[in-house]
Amino acid sequence: MFGGVDNMKERYNVGLIRVVTFTDDKLLNLHGEIIEKYFPMLKVESRCIDDQPYGIHDEETERIAIPKIIELAKSWENIDALIISCAGDPAVKELRKMLDIPVIGAGESTALLARRYGEVYGVLGITEEIPEAYIKILGRDNIVGTCHVPGIKSTIDLMNDEGRKKVIDKALELKSLGAEVIPLACTGMATIGIAKELEDLCGIPVIDPVVAEGLIAYYECIRYRKE
Amino acid sequence: MFGGVDNMKERYNVGLIRVVTFTDDKLLNLHGEIIEKYFPMLKVESRCIDDQPYGIHDEETERIAIPKIIELAKSWENIDALIISCAGDPAVKELRKMLDIPVIGAGESTALLARRYGEVYGVLGITEEIPEAYIKILGRDNIVGTCHVPGIKSTIDLMNDEGRKKVIDKALELKSLGAEVIPLACTGMATIGIAKELEDLCGIPVIDPVVAEGLIAYYECIRYRKE
Repeated sequence: MFGGVDNMKERYNVGLIRVVTFTDDKLLNLHGEIIEKYFPMLKVESRCIDDQPYGIHDEETERIAIPKIIELAKSWENIDALIISCAGDPAVKELRKMLDIPVIGAGESTALLARRYGEVYGVLGITEEIPEAYIKILGRDNIVGTCHVPGIKSTIDLMNDEGRKKVIDKALELKSLGAEVIPLACTGMATIGIAKELEDLCGIPVIDPVVAEGLIAYYECIRYRKE
Repeated sequence: MFGGVDNMKERYNVGLIRVVTFTDDKLLNLHGEIIEKYFPMLKVESRCIDDQPYGIHDEETERIAIPKIIELAKSWENIDALIISCAGDPAVKELRKMLDIPVIGAGESTALLARRYGEVYGVLGITEEIPEAYIKILGRDNIVGTCHVPGIKSTIDLMNDEGRKKVIDKALELKSLGAEVIPLACTGMATIGIAKELEDLCGIPVIDPVVAEGLIAYYECIRYRKE
């Protein structure tokens, strides 16, 4: 009668979709490796969409990515959950209707966890528009400043010292505007592993979107039962 | 330069406070055992407050419990995080100011995760008043029905078939009132392991407070760095 854990697997297979085209396996697998280190019960396989070496960074690049993400996801077999490792949560809603496994977006996961750490949010990403899940979950009125980092056009621009410096400046600006917590809004920020550095420099919590999507994916794996 | 996992421990020691006085070690350790099974990276030690065999079930029992919880917590050494395994989150705010480790409440954790699963909430517990974190995080206007289960006065009343039946009836009532998700608001519901049964009967997600506090505790452990 008392509470126990039924039907739990020792390990869950998770698919992870990168919305940037990588030819380098190390980069392709980086988010999956972060998740596997933090959540050893997850085994992550990563795949990326074709023909988008600069990823998703505006409405047009998101629009053309969505059918590619759906295509990749539909053909994937033997996974317990699917992560779309992008803060814009592209194709997440569509895939939830199509698949019978949990689908997890980086954006919705990051925004949800951010609510634990404060009530004024500095959403820091690479797009002009704040990704939808952040507005819905955090509330537009609770978000200070703009999302976009001047001089950063795509996730690739983050991958050098100058890009890193620009992100730091932006984080400090959001802090000065009153942000109590910084939910990162581009998984490229996880690629460059900048969350803890920002946290130290700003003195407020910074939510890493890849750790967030990993946490929520793990939760979905352990709580989910097929009908 | 690229993102990695620094300073991560293989295992985290978590203290867990039960707000019910148990003489039976099996009952005392039950929440900790659920958490250890779902989160094998956590090692949980459980302690309980004295002289409250019926736990916390109203304002008065909460008031007298708070100093006992603080006393237990203050003397606890060598833990990486502390869970207060009660949906009322008693002493959580006070302890955050006093301790230099993360403090996690069942209520705030359950309410946070509930937001992932819907926008109308049926908060199901044993108190007349809905616990504070649920109102703050979910919004009073988004909560349907009442929290309390008729005929259930304390967590002890849950531990028999009749108690179980009353909880099921209440869950179905909340569903009929429009609840899209049921965040449980008493960790005694986890003790009797009823979340999955309610989920099957109601056809909507039911958030187990002990799994929720375990998940958030794990997140706090991996994201936290001492200054």
